[in-house]
Amino acid sequence: MPDILIKNCDILSFKGGKAHVEFNQDIAIEGNSIQSITPTGSIPEEGCAQILNSSGMLAVPGFINTHAHIPMVLFRNLAEDVTVQEWFNDYIWSMESNLTEEDVYWGAQLGLAEMIENGVTCVADHYFFMDEVAKAVEQAGTRANLVWAVFGNQGEEMVDKTIEFTQRWQGKSDGRITTWLGPHAPYTTSPDFLKMCARKAKKNNLGIHIHLAETQAQTDLSLKEFGVTPVKQVQECGVLDVPTILAHVIAPRGDDFDILAHADAGIAQAPKTYLKSGMGMAPIDRYWEMGIPFGLATDGAVSNNTLDIMEQMRLMGLYAKFLKSDPTFMKLEDILEITFRGSARVIHQAEKIGELKEGMLADITLIHQDGLHATPKANPMASLIYCAKSSDVDTVLCNGKVLMQGRKLLTLDKARIQQEVQSRLQRLSKRLPNERIAYYPA
Amino acid sequence: MPDILIKNCDILSFKGGKAHVEFNQDIAIEGNSIQSITPTGSIPEEGCAQILNSSGMLAVPGFINTHAHIPMVLFRNLAEDVTVQEWFNDYIWSMESNLTEEDVYWGAQLGLAEMIENGVTCVADHYFFMDEVAKAVEQAGTRANLVWAVFGNQGEEMVDKTIEFTQRWQGKSDGRITTWLGPHAPYTTSPDFLKMCARKAKKNNLGIHIHLAETQAQTDLSLKEFGVTPVKQVQECGVLDVPTILAHVIAPRGDDFDILAHADAGIAQAPKTYLKSGMGMAPIDRYWEMGIPFGLATDGAVSNNTLDIMEQMRLMGLYAKFLKSDPTFMKLEDILEITFRGSARVIHQAEKIGELKEGMLADITLIHQDGLHATPKANPMASLIYCAKSSDVDTVLCNGKVLMQGRKLLTLDKARIQQEVQSRLQRLSKRLPNERIAYYPA
Repeated sequence: MPDILIKNCDILSFKGGKAHVEFNQDIAIEGNSIQSITPTGSIPEEGCAQILNSSGMLAVPGFINTHAHIPMVLFRNLAEDVTVQEWFNDYIWSMESNLTEEDVYWGAQLGLAEMIENGVTCVADHYFFMDEVAKAVEQAGTRANLVWAVFGNQGEEMVDKTIEFTQRWQGKSDGRITTWLGPHAPYTTSPDFLKMCARKAKKNNLGIHIHLAETQAQTDLSLKEFGVTPVKQVQECGVLDVPTILAHVIAPRGDDFDILAHADAGIAQAPKTYLKSGMGMAPIDRYWEMGIPFGLATDGAVSNNTLDIMEQMRLMGLYAKFLKSDPTFMKLEDILEITFRGSARVIHQAEKIGELKEGMLADITLIHQDGLHATPKANPMASLIYCAKSSDVDTVLCNGKVLMQGRKLLTLDKARIQQEVQSRLQRLSKRLPNERIAYYPA
Repeated sequence: MPDILIKNCDILSFKGGKAHVEFNQDIAIEGNSIQSITPTGSIPEEGCAQILNSSGMLAVPGFINTHAHIPMVLFRNLAEDVTVQEWFNDYIWSMESNLTEEDVYWGAQLGLAEMIENGVTCVADHYFFMDEVAKAVEQAGTRANLVWAVFGNQGEEMVDKTIEFTQRWQGKSDGRITTWLGPHAPYTTSPDFLKMCARKAKKNNLGIHIHLAETQAQTDLSLKEFGVTPVKQVQECGVLDVPTILAHVIAPRGDDFDILAHADAGIAQAPKTYLKSGMGMAPIDRYWEMGIPFGLATDGAVSNNTLDIMEQMRLMGLYAKFLKSDPTFMKLEDILEITFRGSARVIHQAEKIGELKEGMLADITLIHQDGLHATPKANPMASLIYCAKSSDVDTVLCNGKVLMQGRKLLTLDKARIQQEVQSRLQRLSKRLPNERIAYYPA
């Protein structure tokens, strides 16, 4: 007897290797996993603890956000129309000096609640006070890979503290939480610091989540200062000897592509942030051709404004076609491959999530297909990518538990979260000129 | 006594010339116009026929869609991942040969209903069987500028028929409907045909809505065939001697900018279509610097997939910053200026719509600001542009009448429309190889 039976949905399937939709299916869930997917009516309803009638909805794997700074929702819309340098030095790293552990807890709750509403069930998060984020994830019921960000000036002692964090939370919350290390970026650390992090990651059997080659200017500066690109630098420092999530990688050069292709690395792509900040765009056409895994990400809400992976999915398709001046590039099935299985590879959990099939974890998002903006119902994959709004998400399951149903959040207290965050705004938005947590080189 | 009192909303105002938000205001509506906008509580509720409690919502001018082919929602999602040539010749112009008047009527109802849900109150539409579109607009209660598209091969007789259409509908539906002429484009007509259209437009006191310089290839072909750019060609043919809506104008060259700056012309911009079809992007930075009016558009749903102006607003901001590699370009207030007052100028009704102030027509969209994706409430203009979803639209008024309240459509029958459109899909999606209504040059 399944614990949960999702009845009569259409399913985004990758059976046979290519994204397509199978109509009128039932998904049986036992414990935290998918037990079977069969034509509707095959499985008796009697004895199922919970039936989710999903007629007309599309079931997709829970969306995966491969690079975020969840609690930055606290600063949403507070740094608009500014240069990248101003964004870091005059806004973000100044405002972040105001943060307390409790702020981060409520920010994490807000971000996780927003992501559940948007159908996201798994996130790779890169921030501070990560015990608070872990507590929020525990309560939210989602899946997360968490790293505690460290700048070079915080020294080895801080890295050791973040290793203690990884040990406290590794595999916790029924296996939903995994933990890695998070040296911030080559431009906020040093080669020696990165080597030390890589050594400790290897020794402790941890991966590394790091920002890398985010702009052409960063790559230029690295070449000038160190004689190597940021990608080459992290390779030389041993960072690529462990599993990695590489955030952005907009400006690789020359051999960097081969280095990336041979590493156990996945690249996180946040197109809305790149467009908005004028950072340029990653060469995802080459990543795609070379089989370098990449997936979708929202980055933080101070650049991206929301934590909406469906929006990133659409933008990734749009800008890929635009950059190649070729509307036949980045086809529907390719966009869905990257969104789901690509993102699962980036987060190094492709054997468990990113695809709806027997034996995979039951991370499932159910999406309405009956809006006016999706009428007529003719091509569900095109509709999902180019028509659907994240408000069409109806129901979200993670690890076999229902987190949202009929758009009602079941694990988090929306009103309380909004009140807590709003009450902190005035204090958090203060920008004290001489207090910032790091400095972005001009 | 006002007929309608919108209570305690925040208002997007252009008072003083620049977009900003005024908090906690009441909007009094009498007949089809805004009677006053005052701090909440200033006007007694007694005697008002209708009170709309809008606490916490943002009131914006009804969104304006400056270039659409509304009934193409019938073909939504049916031409994905194909070249521009295939899109026209193998899909659109083949499928459009199946259209009947009744199809267009139901397609128009679907598109208008979708636009009302998205907060759009005014559209410039360019299609066939336009009596049907006019009937749908009459029923929907929105505002529209309608043209009946004509190809050169349909001859002068067809132009005269479209003039009869303009006469049947000019100023009808309490002034909500205006009508112009719609020669399709220079590449589907001829200079003589355009001259004839311009002459008749002038004589009948009509404007012209036309596709122009949509790709660099079109401009190249025009230079090769006629020795002039498409912009120069329409000027020489007299088209710019009447008020015009110029759709897209992605590929102007040299003197074209001066020609555009001195014409009574507005340019319609549909960024999602341009990204998706790899057509390139219009030089909106130069249009902006030179004061050439431009506004937002969805084009048809077969390229844009939806009729969502809020999405175009966001994309316009994002790609402008990206193209200039400058996040300080196209600031919040500029995006809102273009979205509302720019679009009203394009549609040549800036004296009546595009701004909420005393004496303007009561075309108003009320938008929720209390979603998780808009929390904390810190910067309502940034939130509107970069966070809001069109599903946050709660209430829509046009010409002093409520068309949607609490997301319930009051003038159109959603279920019936969806059933009518779905039932036509199979017949309409047939592509007969030798039946197409026009040919796009390779």
